[in-house]
Amino acid sequence: MRADRRANNSRGNIPDAHIANPKDFCAGIDVGGTKISSALFTKTGGILGKTKVPIARSGGEQAADQVAETIASLGKTAARVGGRMLAVGISIPGIVYSASGKVWAPNIPGWDRFPLRDWLERCGQKGGHVPEVRVPMILESDRSAYVTGEAWQGAAAGAADAVFLAVGSGIGAGILAGGRVIHGHEDIAGAVGWFGLNPEFKPVYAEMGCFEAEASGNSVGRKARELLSSGRSSVMIELAKGRIEDVTAETVAEAARMKDPLALQVVDDVVHYLAMGIANIVSILNPEVIVLGGGLFQASDIFPDLVRRDFRKWAQPLAARDVRIELSALGEDAGLYGCGKLAWDSMA
Amino acid sequence: MRADRRANNSRGNIPDAHIANPKDFCAGIDVGGTKISSALFTKTGGILGKTKVPIARSGGEQAADQVAETIASLGKTAARVGGRMLAVGISIPGIVYSASGKVWAPNIPGWDRFPLRDWLERCGQKGGHVPEVRVPMILESDRSAYVTGEAWQGAAAGAADAVFLAVGSGIGAGILAGGRVIHGHEDIAGAVGWFGLNPEFKPVYAEMGCFEAEASGNSVGRKARELLSSGRSSVMIELAKGRIEDVTAETVAEAARMKDPLALQVVDDVVHYLAMGIANIVSILNPEVIVLGGGLFQASDIFPDLVRRDFRKWAQPLAARDVRIELSALGEDAGLYGCGKLAWDSMA
Repeated sequence: MRADRRANNSRGNIPDAHIANPKDFCAGIDVGGTKISSALFTKTGGILGKTKVPIARSGGEQAADQVAETIASLGKTAARVGGRMLAVGISIPGIVYSASGKVWAPNIPGWDRFPLRDWLERCGQKGGHVPEVRVPMILESDRSAYVTGEAWQGAAAGAADAVFLAVGSGIGAGILAGGRVIHGHEDIAGAVGWFGLNPEFKPVYAEMGCFEAEASGNSVGRKARELLSSGRSSVMIELAKGRIEDVTAETVAEAARMKDPLALQVVDDVVHYLAMGIANIVSILNPEVIVLGGGLFQASDIFPDLVRRDFRKWAQPLAARDVRIELSALGEDAGLYGCGKLAWDSMA
Repeated sequence: MRADRRANNSRGNIPDAHIANPKDFCAGIDVGGTKISSALFTKTGGILGKTKVPIARSGGEQAADQVAETIASLGKTAARVGGRMLAVGISIPGIVYSASGKVWAPNIPGWDRFPLRDWLERCGQKGGHVPEVRVPMILESDRSAYVTGEAWQGAAAGAADAVFLAVGSGIGAGILAGGRVIHGHEDIAGAVGWFGLNPEFKPVYAEMGCFEAEASGNSVGRKARELLSSGRSSVMIELAKGRIEDVTAETVAEAARMKDPLALQVVDDVVHYLAMGIANIVSILNPEVIVLGGGLFQASDIFPDLVRRDFRKWAQPLAARDVRIELSALGEDAGLYGCGKLAWDSMA
């Protein structure tokens, strides 16, 4: 039943008959590095009026105004079906400082401790060029939104103890423990890219953390390019049309499927670290499920399959036996669902 | 003010004038591998009637009866000062299965999934040889009690995000996040002794986990004995009266203070892993404070001092900058205070 509803969701709206109380909605707004996704959600996960637009790159205030306009637009959508919007959850690709409501998002120009909560609360008073925001707002980091979304309607549905491990250009984790998001003292919990997994410290660890330097999607490409630069032959060079600098994690995954020895060497090395990092999460948090997301896991089955095989060797045995390792079910909508759920939770 | 009260506590009772409402108490019972400690606590952390007795070794039911008798005795102590005992917190040196109320404690004969909660609730009905337990009971693992105690009246006082890292014969952590104990899906969160910190897997890691194999108190002794067995000279041999098999972590710490090269080599190696393990906790949980407890840290200043120096190299930089690394302030009473606090929290 839930799977059916999810299938419908991925195509857009669901029939009104499935909505418990079609008059009540909470909004989700997933602010990404390049796009703003938004939708209304019923309390049971029904989705309405999903949109996606490019984000304003002209400055922090412009991007914030765009969020305010999105909120107003969702409110109108709710009114159009005779309903109301009760609250809005907003996720940020970076850090949300919960006490101040300021945000830090390296990919959004001007969002360096930008006072987003204040801005949204005040924008109706600044001359009227953007509408006033009148509903309660929940700001959350993207990785916390991902795990919340997957634990609501995705691969971790129903789990109170779940972790979303995002492995793409970087590595980070969203953590749900005992049914609540873990933020940490300074709102930066989940920085697992900084896990130390190799006692032989390398200079690159100081830039991004050991785990991220050894196993992010970017690092997979970097490791392959380093090996290729030493002159070794590989099908990866053909796949990249002779340009070593164009070899990425996707090239490595494709070459590994073709049993290319050099690509398999990179995969083995990266999987070893991924298995250790996942095992460490399992041992310290004893989650019911770890959801794998981000570019590296979505690009190819090879990484999740091998990681599932190897992580148990390192983890606390009982915790390793019981944990499920799942691929993200919501994909790029995980954060959007998470925002909707966080808004609904704020109504409880 | 708090420090004064704590100093009084460590000597036993505190003057009645310091107790906010001297009629209301919650009990703490810290069941250890060899002893049962118990006391009554006022809501503000005042302590009354502290006792410590050897634990019954004759069987699981006998040990459980002893806990029931301790509860009854604390109730009488409360009544004797004209007060009442509202609830009791009980910590176990092992795992508390929260759904069933069963406990697993490897050092207590017969407590292998022993139904402690049922036993205590029913013991008054079993013919009267032990008194009936009539107050609400909270069962908790020892490491969760430690962090709760330190965050109430100890080195982490007032912190909502704190970790107690116990490094003794083994390695484990109690975790407080957002003011709540983290249990995990199967009640075994905090098994950080299983952190993988070295990609070169050694057979001993399969027995106890990589971090524990590289950095527990027992492992410090084992590493020193292995080096000494190869025939190298060291003041550790004299300190152990010629018996290499008697060299322990304490011997290593003492020899390191005397600048013994072999002891310093062991300390360097162990501190390297301790720094990595602590850094990993800092990165994933972003705690305000990590409290170091257990035999290794209590035996000598050398380990905590060096760990504080080294962990920042590995951890997420912002989280590393802000976290405090403190020695346990409550020592062997950390669990007892934690039990009292857990009981009080259950009244809220």
